[in-house]
Amino acid sequence: MAGTNSERQLIAEGPAIILVHPQLGENIGMVARAMANFGLAELRLVNPRDGWPSEKAISAASKADHVIAATKVFSSLEAAVADLNFVYATTARDRYGYKEVRSPVVAAETLRTRFRAGEATGILFGRERTGLTNEEIALADELVTFPVNPAFASLNLAQAVLLMSYEWMKTGMGSLEETAFSALPQRPAQKDELQGLFDHVEEALDARGYFRPAAKKPKLIENLRSALTRPSFTGSEIQVLRGIISCLDRFTRDAPRGTPSPNRTRNRRPKAARDDE
Amino acid sequence: MAGTNSERQLIAEGPAIILVHPQLGENIGMVARAMANFGLAELRLVNPRDGWPSEKAISAASKADHVIAATKVFSSLEAAVADLNFVYATTARDRYGYKEVRSPVVAAETLRTRFRAGEATGILFGRERTGLTNEEIALADELVTFPVNPAFASLNLAQAVLLMSYEWMKTGMGSLEETAFSALPQRPAQKDELQGLFDHVEEALDARGYFRPAAKKPKLIENLRSALTRPSFTGSEIQVLRGIISCLDRFTRDAPRGTPSPNRTRNRRPKAARDDE
Repeated sequence: MAGTNSERQLIAEGPAIILVHPQLGENIGMVARAMANFGLAELRLVNPRDGWPSEKAISAASKADHVIAATKVFSSLEAAVADLNFVYATTARDRYGYKEVRSPVVAAETLRTRFRAGEATGILFGRERTGLTNEEIALADELVTFPVNPAFASLNLAQAVLLMSYEWMKTGMGSLEETAFSALPQRPAQKDELQGLFDHVEEALDARGYFRPAAKKPKLIENLRSALTRPSFTGSEIQVLRGIISCLDRFTRDAPRGTPSPNRTRNRRPKAARDDE
Repeated sequence: MAGTNSERQLIAEGPAIILVHPQLGENIGMVARAMANFGLAELRLVNPRDGWPSEKAISAASKADHVIAATKVFSSLEAAVADLNFVYATTARDRYGYKEVRSPVVAAETLRTRFRAGEATGILFGRERTGLTNEEIALADELVTFPVNPAFASLNLAQAVLLMSYEWMKTGMGSLEETAFSALPQRPAQKDELQGLFDHVEEALDARGYFRPAAKKPKLIENLRSALTRPSFTGSEIQVLRGIISCLDRFTRDAPRGTPSPNRTRNRRPKAARDDE
């Protein structure tokens, strides 16, 4: 899925990702990579079990070097959130508590709104196996939980960070429909092009006795036109179709291209058909 | 982030995930796990490089056994999509082609609509390093691309599957605000409870000469009431606050609890304060 364009400006802003007692360096690296993909850059670690810096983290970060280099380590969660205005805690379990629980979409919208208002925000992620303790949860303003299959909920740390980072990125776009690139614009066919196609097909078929018995011809033509109208062909698609018909009409099977069929006298292919070769 | 509830019914429906020439078994396993988290269950492989079944895939799938067991292998992409009605191809690069390009949100909505209408659908994912070829792309109806940081676009295969699976799951929920669990409902405080708090605080402060000079008292009370009104306390929060005030009011610093301050005569704490101990 690689598509990095090194000439584009690196996006590096938004909430801090705060990992509380992360265990494996690989996971910290995967988190950095997930963040970089979606424009986040501020990683904070509270007491990483295997210390910091970590060669395994650098390797797993897959060149998200700007995130790794700026990572800060704290000895307590309180210190890690001290300068923040608003903090989410991620949890997979119902805590039976009074803190508001948000979906990732709503949490990301809230974070974007607060970011635009100049607030410093963060998202807490717990230990790989056991998540956040209730005491840690208590330091957050609200909770976020992911919509997972209740009978198979096994998001890992980097995947959870990936989903929050992705939702963050989406809130910075103009709309949910927006994509980084689009289909090339195409001109819908005009009705006279479609009529040209009808004429071409019908003449070729008529020459082969397709419209028999004669009483059935109007219905056969109606079905044919109906089938050819429904797909809303573009102008160039009509040209492709006419090329196909010309080829079928004018050349016999296995005859070298350019060799007219013995039954046909025309041997120059129409301009329209050549356009799409 | 584990939160599996094995008593809940396993969700297993929706589009087929089709991996075209995947290389590493680990990645196939991570894909299965990502799918299971979001209720997808149909995995199809086109010519996996290291063969199938794969011990590495089973290990990386982290108990997504139902996905691994049902995985089907095909010798061509054409065969893998033969029974499907509508297929998306994922791509990170602009193909400069005429196929419509959709965001994951729009693609997931389309897949859900088609699923509800009884159509069989699929999503194509290419090789780990190089993605899908133009010939493979041509077999899809539309394209999906992810909104990534243009200067750092390095989603891996399992992450791309995770994001599409997550968006699929979201389309099956009632709303984007929905969460699997919620904060416990809380009753907002009544105004007489708030008035009780005002009286309590003001009496305790007044006894300490807080409202001096007397001319400033109305403004000081106004500020105090304003600060206490704004947070929209719940009934139980008011009780907690009154417990705090009682404690500060009635006990001297470092005196054992229950030992009345020498300056005070009351030595029974009010009912409201005890309720939240």
